Amino acid sequence: MQTLDASRAPAALAAVSEGARLQANNLLAADIARYLETVGTPHYRLEVLDGLELRKRAQVFGYLPLERQAELVAIMPVPCLGQLLGAMSADERADLVNHLDALPRGRLLPALARAEREDVLKLCSYDEGTAGALMTSDYSWLPAQLTAAQAIDALRAQAGDAETIYQNYILDENRRLLGTLSLRQLIVAPADQPLAALMVSPVVHAHVDTPAERIARLINDYDLLALPILDAQQRLVGIVTCDDAMDVVVSEATEDFHKGASIAQHIGNLKDATVGLLYRKRVFWLVLLVFGNLFSGAGIAAFEDVIAANIALVFFLPLLVDSGGNAGAQSATLMVRALATGEVVLRDWVRLLGRECLVALALGCTMAVAVSTLGVLRGGWDIALIVASSMLIIVLFGSVIGMSLPFAFNRLRMDPATASGPLITSIADAAGVLVYFGIASAVLNL
Amino acid sequence: MQTLDASRAPAALAAVSEGARLQANNLLAADIARYLETVGTPHYRLEVLDGLELRKRAQVFGYLPLERQAELVAIMPVPCLGQLLGAMSADERADLVNHLDALPRGRLLPALARAEREDVLKLCSYDEGTAGALMTSDYSWLPAQLTAAQAIDALRAQAGDAETIYQNYILDENRRLLGTLSLRQLIVAPADQPLAALMVSPVVHAHVDTPAERIARLINDYDLLALPILDAQQRLVGIVTCDDAMDVVVSEATEDFHKGASIAQHIGNLKDATVGLLYRKRVFWLVLLVFGNLFSGAGIAAFEDVIAANIALVFFLPLLVDSGGNAGAQSATLMVRALATGEVVLRDWVRLLGRECLVALALGCTMAVAVSTLGVLRGGWDIALIVASSMLIIVLFGSVIGMSLPFAFNRLRMDPATASGPLITSIADAAGVLVYFGIASAVLNL
Repeated sequence: MQTLDASRAPAALAAVSEGARLQANNLLAADIARYLETVGTPHYRLEVLDGLELRKRAQVFGYLPLERQAELVAIMPVPCLGQLLGAMSADERADLVNHLDALPRGRLLPALARAEREDVLKLCSYDEGTAGALMTSDYSWLPAQLTAAQAIDALRAQAGDAETIYQNYILDENRRLLGTLSLRQLIVAPADQPLAALMVSPVVHAHVDTPAERIARLINDYDLLALPILDAQQRLVGIVTCDDAMDVVVSEATEDFHKGASIAQHIGNLKDATVGLLYRKRVFWLVLLVFGNLFSGAGIAAFEDVIAANIALVFFLPLLVDSGGNAGAQSATLMVRALATGEVVLRDWVRLLGRECLVALALGCTMAVAVSTLGVLRGGWDIALIVASSMLIIVLFGSVIGMSLPFAFNRLRMDPATASGPLITSIADAAGVLVYFGIASAVLNL
Repeated sequence: MQTLDASRAPAALAAVSEGARLQANNLLAADIARYLETVGTPHYRLEVLDGLELRKRAQVFGYLPLERQAELVAIMPVPCLGQLLGAMSADERADLVNHLDALPRGRLLPALARAEREDVLKLCSYDEGTAGALMTSDYSWLPAQLTAAQAIDALRAQAGDAETIYQNYILDENRRLLGTLSLRQLIVAPADQPLAALMVSPVVHAHVDTPAERIARLINDYDLLALPILDAQQRLVGIVTCDDAMDVVVSEATEDFHKGASIAQHIGNLKDATVGLLYRKRVFWLVLLVFGNLFSGAGIAAFEDVIAANIALVFFLPLLVDSGGNAGAQSATLMVRALATGEVVLRDWVRLLGRECLVALALGCTMAVAVSTLGVLRGGWDIALIVASSMLIIVLFGSVIGMSLPFAFNRLRMDPATASGPLITSIADAAGVLVYFGIASAVLNL
């Protein structure tokens, strides 16, 4: 890999302080940012940034985590801050302002030119997790009456500011979206052809209040470089680019992973998470599940006589209840992920339920055979019959609950990922206790 | 959304059979493919495809799942097949050939022109899950001696075939990578400037054997439109584009979700999965964990006297062992995901272990307090002391195991995601039984 690696970085960047700007300017912005993220003090970071040309400085700054950006805002002289913010991309600038407390924000906003300030405040007004909060206003647009050659000239002028000039939007005089035209289509088109004849429409688009997951899925499904975002009056107000969509895909998957282990949302970068934060994000469900598990305890208490008379039954308890939880966690995970990627939708539930019952029946039978051999060895044929039939019913029950719960949450407009492994384990445990000791007391006539 | 929705699709596409090609040609390829995926017979699909112009036909075909593509290959006349394959992108063509059995492959390969056939066989020779298997050979390249204006003309000629012309690679006479130049940089450059003076280097790149996850992470970290892939002689042999990287991110996350619930890899689209496939992917770990849970059973058997003398202890058993498993699943999930996204690496283990102990201590104390109140109510102060101290130790143990196992698997060059919730539950169960009944027998002097 020709990129900056950690061992070479300090040497390469030491050159900055010595005034050899050129060398750091030749490094990739993402590499400089990764190096600055972990090394030195805010003042050292500021010094390195000052050594870079403005465009590269804005790029590096944009790659830094928001906490690091905020530290630098606090110590940067106001004129430098205004210059830097002016060169940043509109969405990164808005993310920074959103992240800042009232005091540094009050320092930052006056440093911006008026148009930029209005743009920032507009972008900051959208709810987190929507297209509005994700988009940038640095898109490239063209009026329909230009020819292909004129359009390329117009793009040359926009190339400095726009996030991408590869996907261009054709707007009418009210900024309503008429069509789209890629730079590829433009450069192969005859020079005198008007854009109105070249543009492609209808255009895949979304609105400012469309959820971020849906934006990412549209960009992925249609293999787009950018997705245009319209306001309520159908006017173009921004674009979401494919690299931002990829960030959404990664962070949504992380949130779903965490939910699947009953961890509350928004841990951020795990390496930087404090003990207090991790405690708060984890404790709620853990304590809730302690009380949830009282149902299993109550089930056991109800059968204390059966257990006392047949203490050997306890041997199989963890094995049986865990099997129900494991099968349920498998089913739930398959469904949660398929719902998240859009592979299945709510109305598929009935059809999938039928298949799940068949799969669970096959799994249950296999596991019943496995456990019944243990039953014979440990307690004779009675016990074998009890544990085998319990296993079958517990695995069936766990699987059906595991696959149905995500659909139920979806139906209730809750996140299907809330149907986590620990939750299903607790439900399967309680059911498993009742099934197992219920069958045992029936078979053993207690 | 202006895209084709399911209710409107049949009407829009019915027009195809009536010869109104223009209408279907105006629909987006991804929408036509999504409609064809679920509706009608292979012959109907072939008829719709035949109604499309060649470029659109190849795009739609490329969006279809490989099983559907294979069905169409089987019934398509050889000349049509050759024409279609010639118009497909090189990576999609190779994926199809890889998916086909020997018989249809033998039918397909002779339909290709010689250069395309060699290209397909080359791309098919790389191992699945590597950059070689992911890349396309349809990249755009330029010799260093061209001027900016000549380069734009050269790109015009390549625009029909290349996957993207927005990121261009400058090669020497041995096809070694000298630098890169975006179309944006090209069109703002002075027309007579030579590429050698304009190009950017060094270039972020990877090799044909680089794993797919790493490719996706590079594209995401550097916000690239395409990543150049080199062979062992440092010659450019292909590119991976950002849309393919996004597909990798989604499918890697899905695989990790499945592993986290101890489901074997490669389920494919869940909706199309058969009962047999799901059974095979799920049964192995379920049965293995049944035997794993024997350790818990053995632990219980060892303490049968303690249990018989204090049957009330069983009440707290599911609650205690589940809490260890839940805390462990949380820790493991945090680590598995952070290792997958690159937020943490192997050498962070020691530092994170210290933090995890503090978090687990805080969690364990909270849960010990919660469970001790139940203990007092149900069995008096002795029982409260036993369950509280057991809870603390079990949660600590579960958390430390949960966070360490992914690192251990990583160290052993196994996938950290194998440290699944069910596996950790089983380990925490066995440990929990020993801790709980061990403490009980000590406190109660049994």
